[in-house]
Amino acid sequence: MASEWDAQEEYAVPAPVWSVDPRTGQQREQIGQEATAADVDAAVRAAEAARTGLADRAARTALLRGAAAQLEAAAEQIVRTADAETALGEVRLKGELARTTGQLRAFADEAEDGGHLGVIIDHADPSATPPRPDLRRYRIPLGVVAVYAASNFPLAFSVPGGDTASALAAGCPVVVKAHPDHPATSELCAAALRRAAAEAGLDENVLGLVHGFDAGVELIKHPLVAAAGFTGSVRGGRALFDAAAARPVPIPFHGELGSLNPVVITRAAAGERAGEIGAGLAGSMTMGTGQFCTKPGLVFTPAGESGDQLVTSLAGALSGTPEGVMLDARMREAFAAGVAARAGLDGVQAPVTPGAGGSGGVAAGFLTVPADRLAAGGGEYDLLLEECFGPVTVIARYGDPAEISAALERIGGSLTATVHIGGTEAEEPDGEAARLLAELRPYAGRLLVNGWPTGVAVAPAQHHGGPYPATTSTSTSVGATAIERWLRPVVYQNTPEALLPPELHDANPLGLPRRVNGRREEPAGR
Amino acid sequence: MASEWDAQEEYAVPAPVWSVDPRTGQQREQIGQEATAADVDAAVRAAEAARTGLADRAARTALLRGAAAQLEAAAEQIVRTADAETALGEVRLKGELARTTGQLRAFADEAEDGGHLGVIIDHADPSATPPRPDLRRYRIPLGVVAVYAASNFPLAFSVPGGDTASALAAGCPVVVKAHPDHPATSELCAAALRRAAAEAGLDENVLGLVHGFDAGVELIKHPLVAAAGFTGSVRGGRALFDAAAARPVPIPFHGELGSLNPVVITRAAAGERAGEIGAGLAGSMTMGTGQFCTKPGLVFTPAGESGDQLVTSLAGALSGTPEGVMLDARMREAFAAGVAARAGLDGVQAPVTPGAGGSGGVAAGFLTVPADRLAAGGGEYDLLLEECFGPVTVIARYGDPAEISAALERIGGSLTATVHIGGTEAEEPDGEAARLLAELRPYAGRLLVNGWPTGVAVAPAQHHGGPYPATTSTSTSVGATAIERWLRPVVYQNTPEALLPPELHDANPLGLPRRVNGRREEPAGR
Repeated sequence: MASEWDAQEEYAVPAPVWSVDPRTGQQREQIGQEATAADVDAAVRAAEAARTGLADRAARTALLRGAAAQLEAAAEQIVRTADAETALGEVRLKGELARTTGQLRAFADEAEDGGHLGVIIDHADPSATPPRPDLRRYRIPLGVVAVYAASNFPLAFSVPGGDTASALAAGCPVVVKAHPDHPATSELCAAALRRAAAEAGLDENVLGLVHGFDAGVELIKHPLVAAAGFTGSVRGGRALFDAAAARPVPIPFHGELGSLNPVVITRAAAGERAGEIGAGLAGSMTMGTGQFCTKPGLVFTPAGESGDQLVTSLAGALSGTPEGVMLDARMREAFAAGVAARAGLDGVQAPVTPGAGGSGGVAAGFLTVPADRLAAGGGEYDLLLEECFGPVTVIARYGDPAEISAALERIGGSLTATVHIGGTEAEEPDGEAARLLAELRPYAGRLLVNGWPTGVAVAPAQHHGGPYPATTSTSTSVGATAIERWLRPVVYQNTPEALLPPELHDANPLGLPRRVNGRREEPAGR
Repeated sequence: MASEWDAQEEYAVPAPVWSVDPRTGQQREQIGQEATAADVDAAVRAAEAARTGLADRAARTALLRGAAAQLEAAAEQIVRTADAETALGEVRLKGELARTTGQLRAFADEAEDGGHLGVIIDHADPSATPPRPDLRRYRIPLGVVAVYAASNFPLAFSVPGGDTASALAAGCPVVVKAHPDHPATSELCAAALRRAAAEAGLDENVLGLVHGFDAGVELIKHPLVAAAGFTGSVRGGRALFDAAAARPVPIPFHGELGSLNPVVITRAAAGERAGEIGAGLAGSMTMGTGQFCTKPGLVFTPAGESGDQLVTSLAGALSGTPEGVMLDARMREAFAAGVAARAGLDGVQAPVTPGAGGSGGVAAGFLTVPADRLAAGGGEYDLLLEECFGPVTVIARYGDPAEISAALERIGGSLTATVHIGGTEAEEPDGEAARLLAELRPYAGRLLVNGWPTGVAVAPAQHHGGPYPATTSTSTSVGATAIERWLRPVVYQNTPEALLPPELHDANPLGLPRRVNGRREEPAGR
């Protein structure tokens, strides 16, 4: 297999990697060079060689907790650098760093708990027909995981983010393909994680980092890469998904690609809280300059007076929103073009016009459209059913709720779907709110009532995923079960105890939750 | 979406489907016709329409238990028909039917237990930074599942088999693409399952059946098909996997494709039990005329006297084995050709020559090769590292165990890997047996000690899967966790109890095992 990689030496002059300030468009500093195929090969092989140490769960938990501590120790530099590269602001980035360290510690807790190992033991039953052998199953790490970092969360969905944390917790070394929008931040975070590895007595190559588009393509094809996590665009994610599936040995590709995040405001909700909902929507859709995967992108709002009030409230709140700076110039252009194309559709209005602002920034705004246009078909209005990255949302005004149903049939999967309902609707198991939730569920992984989808709480129950194109698999990139993506089960049959891993010994020396002969067992003291 | 399918009316004259007796090669009876694209569309739409009833777990358990009872009531006809179509013999098929009904009941138990729902609840924590919302997660059915039936288990891995049983248990309707080697059996089993559905008050279209190669291709492309299960060849499975990945909306494809199932006999084991191991191997490799996915296909046997004795024992046992009839004429031809190609390699010998027998049957036999040839590379001997369906195995004679390690580096993934070890080796945690198990684990999903891989016990801990090409995913097609393939998680955020499904109510009215605020809870009385 080495020869396949050794031969690809066409990158004779590696391209420099620059850290760019999106506020000015100026290059800040050079961060090394794009990785050649040989560099990618070396990073993956080094990660593979670092697997052995990660087999020890105690070392993994030490690594994850140490990583959190190292990030905190370097917090000032990381936040300052991330702000300079992303323009997301230090307040938000401090919060994101806290989220990131909290997540690293939460996955350390999960690794310690051991529930993710999925231990199931069935003792032999010689009286069964046919006689049943002794079977003991648990999950083992898949191998080197490739992580493709996101632009919009330079910490929580990047080098030290959920994909990396969950893979390390599972016992898999990681090679991150850095996002070009924050290479300096990526290097700082990688260094922090590698210091934590060394402190935990592990090979620091449990975390590798490569830069460059071509490096990302090489990475997904590498024979020693066993799985991949991705957060980004539909186009980029689908290309990598296709490459993962086309390998001689296909690998799991857990990609989070794109999400419209539909919201439905019932007539009752608008009647009760038009002003509050309009203001809340403004806050959610402009958070991080509209660059959240969970930004509400389509809001079904009733026609008539209460809906008008909601629109007025939204317009008022947005009018006071200062211009924002997007993560890079390309995104700003795509935002301006996307908004213009949508605004040009017949029947679409822009009460507050979104688009490129004067001094390199972007102005938040929103579009309105009669909801019945969305269902009309012909495809023209399907553009309004696609994610538009940046501070814009589409308000679809409906007369009859059947217009919502008709529009939903044309949307793809989303990470979230939200309903805002009235006070009495919350108490009716068979009412309009329940009907709407049932109608939205096929399209989303997270359902919210009277809230906003931006902000993804880190908690065991969290599910951050949804039907395609929200994700390319049925798994999540946030929450306890994210670990399961990087594991595969193996079962031992009639194996003497001396040859079994301790996880599968009858006496349960590691105190693992497990299922024995059909009964779940929780170790004492929990 | 209807128009896409309505347009495909090119199958003007549907091909007849014939049930063929492999013992004579004669057509037994015509079993309807191959499904056209319109037929497939109708079957999938009917299955989709039948989803609602399956949402009720009690109805699902009634369906699965009723299906077992219906199969038992029709057992005589099913076994007689299956034997006429497969030549597997009534004794084996009676056993397979018992396995199948046991599996249906086991999945009913799992559906009743509810552990597969994966309920996780995190209550709101307003004091957290940021405040944590109330999150309640469980798993919901994916939708219509396409099942591609296997040839070699006309019951247990076909219409009423594990893929169907686990999908129904998960709440997913199934459309089975029948295997052409047993269309009459498929129809009988489908009718039994549909009767059980009607008895359980469900739409009988929870189980659909289509015949024909083209129908299988249409099925994987159908927009309403949400996932697929497959048991069969590497070539066919990979083609369908590729089609599933290439869809506009890719779907999970759980395929079991091919498996070499390596076995290592240690010098100590051969020294202690050469005769017993040789006889055991003969029984395992000829079971079902060598047409098991778990047939041991490569057996590392020590050079020298004890290994010679093992070979002699194997030869003796095989010499007494009567000719068998393979499932169809094409397989018999492929077996004869596969054996001939392998036997023609330099250094390969055939102490008992396998191949096509005189009167339409096949003779069991085995090949031997020096193990160091397997690692030599150049690719010529890689043929010996590929599955050869039918009653043949390859004995690789090794001098130094390093020859085993070198050969393993060239094999793909398998469902199983087996070691036969000596008495004292079973007691040495750091000895040769432990080293071999660790070396084999990366290549297999089930590890056996002093046993034979044929025979896959139905038990909660079972894992019937392995690294590619054994399976195309990290999941299993046998055992309790097989249900998880057909589910996706969804989480409710801050949702009033009246709008939550009862599975997520605080009071746990359905008595589900769950994890609440990080602690696992087992309902009382279990």
